[in-house]
Amino acid sequence: MNLTDIQELDIIDPFAKHREQFQLPENKVYLDGNSLGIMTKATETRLQNVIQQQWSQDLINSWNDHNWVNLPQTVGEKIAHLIGAEPEQTICCDSISVNLFKALTAALTIVQTQDSERTVVLSTKDNFPTDLYMVQGVAQFLGQHRCQLKLVDESELEQHINSKTALVLATEVNFRTGRRINAKQLVANAHENGALVILDLAHSAGAMPVHLDDWQVDFAVGCTYKYLNGGPGAPAFIYAAKRHHKNMSQPLSGWFGHARPFDFSPEYEPAAGIQQMLTGTPSVLAMSAVDAALDVFKGVSLEKLREKSLQLSDVFHQLLKTHDLDDVLQPIFPEQRSERGSQLSYHYEHAYGLCQALIQRGVVADFRAPNYIRFGFTPLYNSFEDIWQAAEQLRQVLAENEHLDPRWQQRNTVT
Amino acid sequence: MNLTDIQELDIIDPFAKHREQFQLPENKVYLDGNSLGIMTKATETRLQNVIQQQWSQDLINSWNDHNWVNLPQTVGEKIAHLIGAEPEQTICCDSISVNLFKALTAALTIVQTQDSERTVVLSTKDNFPTDLYMVQGVAQFLGQHRCQLKLVDESELEQHINSKTALVLATEVNFRTGRRINAKQLVANAHENGALVILDLAHSAGAMPVHLDDWQVDFAVGCTYKYLNGGPGAPAFIYAAKRHHKNMSQPLSGWFGHARPFDFSPEYEPAAGIQQMLTGTPSVLAMSAVDAALDVFKGVSLEKLREKSLQLSDVFHQLLKTHDLDDVLQPIFPEQRSERGSQLSYHYEHAYGLCQALIQRGVVADFRAPNYIRFGFTPLYNSFEDIWQAAEQLRQVLAENEHLDPRWQQRNTVT
Repeated sequence: MNLTDIQELDIIDPFAKHREQFQLPENKVYLDGNSLGIMTKATETRLQNVIQQQWSQDLINSWNDHNWVNLPQTVGEKIAHLIGAEPEQTICCDSISVNLFKALTAALTIVQTQDSERTVVLSTKDNFPTDLYMVQGVAQFLGQHRCQLKLVDESELEQHINSKTALVLATEVNFRTGRRINAKQLVANAHENGALVILDLAHSAGAMPVHLDDWQVDFAVGCTYKYLNGGPGAPAFIYAAKRHHKNMSQPLSGWFGHARPFDFSPEYEPAAGIQQMLTGTPSVLAMSAVDAALDVFKGVSLEKLREKSLQLSDVFHQLLKTHDLDDVLQPIFPEQRSERGSQLSYHYEHAYGLCQALIQRGVVADFRAPNYIRFGFTPLYNSFEDIWQAAEQLRQVLAENEHLDPRWQQRNTVT
Repeated sequence: MNLTDIQELDIIDPFAKHREQFQLPENKVYLDGNSLGIMTKATETRLQNVIQQQWSQDLINSWNDHNWVNLPQTVGEKIAHLIGAEPEQTICCDSISVNLFKALTAALTIVQTQDSERTVVLSTKDNFPTDLYMVQGVAQFLGQHRCQLKLVDESELEQHINSKTALVLATEVNFRTGRRINAKQLVANAHENGALVILDLAHSAGAMPVHLDDWQVDFAVGCTYKYLNGGPGAPAFIYAAKRHHKNMSQPLSGWFGHARPFDFSPEYEPAAGIQQMLTGTPSVLAMSAVDAALDVFKGVSLEKLREKSLQLSDVFHQLLKTHDLDDVLQPIFPEQRSERGSQLSYHYEHAYGLCQALIQRGVVADFRAPNYIRFGFTPLYNSFEDIWQAAEQLRQVLAENEHLDPRWQQRNTVT
């Protein structure tokens, strides 16, 4: 496969035009959209308006006049389109961690009203740590008689669901390996065994089709700063299936989740629907950025997006093979396309140095402890030529031993 | 008092220069900084840099290169200077509501480790509703045997502290009346009776001196979008006195509060100090705005700021008297200067219409249900001529009966 073949793929790419909607960084091949998405041009325009008009000129009146007060709902509904959710089940607010706390407490209450013996929250050892930490927080406060975290291998998750299981907490695409679980099958299995499912969509939303309603997922949370390009640390989202709205409650009962927040009543009365998942006043700067960023998905077929994502990863791995590097970098991603997320991860002894050396050459990938390198593919803005460049620079780094440079001491990175 | 006298006051105002650091709205007298502060010019510059360089060009590397990862601490320490807190006790994150949940659960645990019979959280009927809602959330979550909310009149708060009281949850300056409690005395009384105090500084921070360490306050929360000018819905802050750090824990144990978040360990281990109050990934746009906004306080004497704030309110009320309006608008603020916040509130039958009619004339004040009008004074950017203009327009609105215009149907507003 040579550069001409690659360029041919870009010519017929149905998303070539979408790339132009992004404020692409100069002189970079960016394969880290699974960590922090690139800003869209519409986002910049929107932020300028929020700064120069809405906040600085219109000030407090903007809560009504520019509809700040409904941003959590407006943004939530745009996300709903991307995760297979009918309206009024998805809302944008807080962080994934905080939203997990709401989902965990709400779901536990529902299950335990039926069967107080169900106390186990089942999850996987290599789930993203904050997911596990939030279960530990709930367990510490409710006590072991209400909540116990049980961790198993990802491959054995389903076989551990039993009559003690209250909830299964699973992330659809593993942040380290990029392995995608069969969420539909997991939910069916959990429900058959009387448990509910909370699904973390951090590495799925905006990268592939998700069918929360069809799969009968109970609760879900997700991130807007990866494939949804909402900006660094952008607010997260939470989904609660409509069938649970009547029976759910969660303790972060702030005034934005009140049925009539502007009555300023001293008694909390939860709003009827998904709005009861809101807590405090949302950041308008952060919310406006997500709101604008989501418009790039208008008219996008998630099936076609998924196909391009898989094609990008196929081409990347094929090029590594061509460079005889598929033995040097050991794939830790699944061979089956259907089991992959939108990233390829490799085990490599000098993964940190490799990552740093690539950055020096303008190729941004991601290191994950202890020695993995992740290449994220964002089909809305990554071209096939990006992939070709990345593989070529990777080849040169290794040929020149740049990854062994003593400068590359291990240090912290952020997901 | 005529306009010339007023203009004289502006000439000798020590904060006249600070006004120039704000992006003042055109053709407006803005007396609503107690709801949403005005943007500083430095904030706009900073946001432009975050948008055009840090996010769009430097992307993921900015977590380290632009120190995004430490924003909660950096901003927290800037706030600490304004609330009388020695370093390492204040951090910026989440909303007030979410931070209240952390403070409530942390403080309850500390008290109940000593004395499990102390289950009452004492607060005031007219506290800001979200404060009360969060106690109701905790009570529901932990059960009545751990947490019960007891509401009393603000004037009787201290006399209700007894051997059942775990916590006193008080807001220093009431959002409706603007009445300021004696926090130092409250804390002394609570401690004498074995209870801890959580203080809400939403209407204090940035408007007057606060002495959390000196007053021996246990926990505090506060808002950055009012007198701190951090932007609409900007992240809040939380303070925990150092003496409690060893014994405190809170259930929103997200990865940013971990001792070593980037180890990605499946076991939660809280960070040693105030950092354990962090939960999820912070919004960089929102945090950067607060960070920049706080620089306007560099070198500001909070005592002098307080003096100007009281002077602004004195002048305003004096002008209403001059216009014979102090019987029409009934003061609900305390006569004693020391008991006032940085706002004056009046009861008036047509408060909503009055507020709307004033907005039409470019004077922005604030309506609070059922029939109060609040005038907020922000001494860093309000001039004495602003006050004169507001009183003059108010006189004209009432003289012309503009407040009775049938257009002014009651509707929602946001604090």
